[in-house]
Amino acid sequence: MSAPTWLHETFDPTGSSIGFRVTKKLDEVQSPFQKIEIYESTDWGNVMLIDGAMMVTTRDNFFYHEMVSHPALFTHAAPKRVVIIGGGDCGTLREVLKHPGVESAVQCDIDEQVTRMSEKYFPELCASNGDPRAQLLFDDGIAYMRDCAPGSVDVVIVDSTDPVGPAEGLFNKAFFDSCFRALKDDGILVQQSESPLALLDLIREMRAEMGKAGFTTFQTLPFPQPCYPTGWWSVTLARKGQGFDFRQADAAAKGFETAYYSAEIHKAAQVLPPFVAKALEA
Amino acid sequence: MSAPTWLHETFDPTGSSIGFRVTKKLDEVQSPFQKIEIYESTDWGNVMLIDGAMMVTTRDNFFYHEMVSHPALFTHAAPKRVVIIGGGDCGTLREVLKHPGVESAVQCDIDEQVTRMSEKYFPELCASNGDPRAQLLFDDGIAYMRDCAPGSVDVVIVDSTDPVGPAEGLFNKAFFDSCFRALKDDGILVQQSESPLALLDLIREMRAEMGKAGFTTFQTLPFPQPCYPTGWWSVTLARKGQGFDFRQADAAAKGFETAYYSAEIHKAAQVLPPFVAKALEA
Repeated sequence: MSAPTWLHETFDPTGSSIGFRVTKKLDEVQSPFQKIEIYESTDWGNVMLIDGAMMVTTRDNFFYHEMVSHPALFTHAAPKRVVIIGGGDCGTLREVLKHPGVESAVQCDIDEQVTRMSEKYFPELCASNGDPRAQLLFDDGIAYMRDCAPGSVDVVIVDSTDPVGPAEGLFNKAFFDSCFRALKDDGILVQQSESPLALLDLIREMRAEMGKAGFTTFQTLPFPQPCYPTGWWSVTLARKGQGFDFRQADAAAKGFETAYYSAEIHKAAQVLPPFVAKALEA
Repeated sequence: MSAPTWLHETFDPTGSSIGFRVTKKLDEVQSPFQKIEIYESTDWGNVMLIDGAMMVTTRDNFFYHEMVSHPALFTHAAPKRVVIIGGGDCGTLREVLKHPGVESAVQCDIDEQVTRMSEKYFPELCASNGDPRAQLLFDDGIAYMRDCAPGSVDVVIVDSTDPVGPAEGLFNKAFFDSCFRALKDDGILVQQSESPLALLDLIREMRAEMGKAGFTTFQTLPFPQPCYPTGWWSVTLARKGQGFDFRQADAAAKGFETAYYSAEIHKAAQVLPPFVAKALEA
């Protein structure tokens, strides 16, 4: 074990940083798309960085993976066909497949190396990769959504990196057009939507782009996420007109374990602090 | 304006760090108790550090100051006499004095230099220091609570630094004994209680110490706080037997502005994520 050192991610858009005390670099690979690094930390298990940005730690990834999955899946009346764009660490796929009603979950991440690294350093996130309902594609998510059969998908989860680099094309009208067309009429699009404190403008712009693609109702749910800038993150759900009442009884009686998500937390997350509500109404 | 650099707080107990991009050091003073530094940042306004720990930024202090004050004050039926132990930046005092029913608010911080620095670099937090109901003492909070007339206080707010250094004595049975005695029978003790992810053990131990002092009911409320380790923080309320139903109608009709707190956020904060609920039940 090496002497611990501090590894910081300095995030320019928020002018803030997040870091962990690490003991050694376990791996590094330069894929055709991005640089992936894995560190061992003293308190957070393993840490994955992509192009210098903290992506996942063993200890705290459950906040994000649960909140990007369960609110959307318990809001849809009966989600059967789910598509995950990005999500190469497979943690979202695992959460989605906890829902017994899901018949197929396609994960389409452009970078196979993210999944290979996750299999090695975050095996628990990959526990459901062998599920017969799972299909792992390593391909361009923008093209995948564009070519999807119209009205064929119940839930699209965009589990992407920040809207720079490979993920930039996942935050604009052209991509949301594809999602809108691929979704059934009662379908739900859910996208990770950055910090509701420091990146409120981005959330507002993203909702506007979703609106241009035809989505008419939106719901932004904040939650803690220590390894992302500001430690406070969000997902945004979009629908073609329906509201966001969720299957609360089903969520309360779910037959699987979660650490952060619960029916009550789902309800609580729907309450936006006054300053966020005001910014998103404007 | 100097070239921006990054200023990190590396926090050993959580093995994680928080940082801000700063442009210059505005001030530094070594008081008899601690080192206080003020920096100008690119995105967070001014930043105050005490002994290297981030205390307050202009941009994000509202989370903490609102949550350490309003839940307790709207839980008490009619809070008139409030004591703040610590709180030298005066932001908590300002929130407390937004309640028109409060007749007196004593702020007792051991370090006058914290208030002097706040007056200069966070004048908005000191806006109510001249309120005739406010009394600013620069003295030992432990002694102040020990010498308080029994049954004379409605709400004690412990707005302290981390439980090391000068604040160590604010987290044990002896101090809680004093608070218990000073409080009226329907009184409320509220204490900042660190990260509900990384410092759950500390919350549990603190509640146990409060219990030894005679408090029998507890409520821990999590909230986002970007400038503190993990970005997720909490306050813990303790009472002598009463529950935590709050004056929801009064909170909803409050005649003052808040950025984070609302009656709905208060209710939502009462919902603990499963992993926190489990740890605190144990």
